[in-house]
Amino acid sequence: MADTIFKKIIDGQIPAHKVYEDSHVIAILDIGPLSRGHTLVITKEPAETLDQLSDESAAAVGRVLPRLCRAVVAATGVRDYNVLENNGHAAHQAVRHVHFHIIPKPSERDGLGIGWPAASLGSDAPELAARIREALR
Amino acid sequence: MADTIFKKIIDGQIPAHKVYEDSHVIAILDIGPLSRGHTLVITKEPAETLDQLSDESAAAVGRVLPRLCRAVVAATGVRDYNVLENNGHAAHQAVRHVHFHIIPKPSERDGLGIGWPAASLGSDAPELAARIREALR
Repeated sequence: MADTIFKKIIDGQIPAHKVYEDSHVIAILDIGPLSRGHTLVITKEPAETLDQLSDESAAAVGRVLPRLCRAVVAATGVRDYNVLENNGHAAHQAVRHVHFHIIPKPSERDGLGIGWPAASLGSDAPELAARIREALR
Repeated sequence: MADTIFKKIIDGQIPAHKVYEDSHVIAILDIGPLSRGHTLVITKEPAETLDQLSDESAAAVGRVLPRLCRAVVAATGVRDYNVLENNGHAAHQAVRHVHFHIIPKPSERDGLGIGWPAASLGSDAPELAARIREALR
């Protein structure tokens, strides 16, 4: 896998507005923010998508998210926010290296645009749940 | 805080299509799915928003996300997906109890609707990054 821009930021080859770093995670301001304070939480492990990430890195990024969210809320004064992690081109993943967005939502018009075309659960729900449980084994 | 529908599901008072459970987390099919396989990963700790969640619960939910994503991908056959966690009314949070959505994205038209009104990082970025770092102390 070719080095992504995030790998280069982690390695210090490209500058970034870094806000946090530990042995598993780095957090920086997004250079194309959807709102002021839009922050990226990037795993140092260079997995392309979340399903490929190790449990250890996933636990580390999960553990630090509340603390980073509190800091973004405190620094921006915006209480509402979305945490988003995209996997694959159709899902709007731009850099093939796992990263969580923390995106302040100052109002329903600003920040991440959210379309919610909810449907009803199909009659195959019991079978679908069984297939997911089976895949977890 | 009043019991949410998720608390009642965790307590077994309301049925759900459960796909996973451990001591910190429960995962169920969303009854109003944005796409087939839309799964909710709910913390047993009844925090309203991610910034209020304990590090321990946050690490536990982080740790199990890759495994659940793999299972949703395997069961649906859809490789691309979004992981979304909403905080506050403006940010489309419907139930005031921390939950991560795993939403298969079969195509750019289906699944979560994503609006991405990216701007440029303002000239106050160094100051903003400093404020977030300060808030992390």
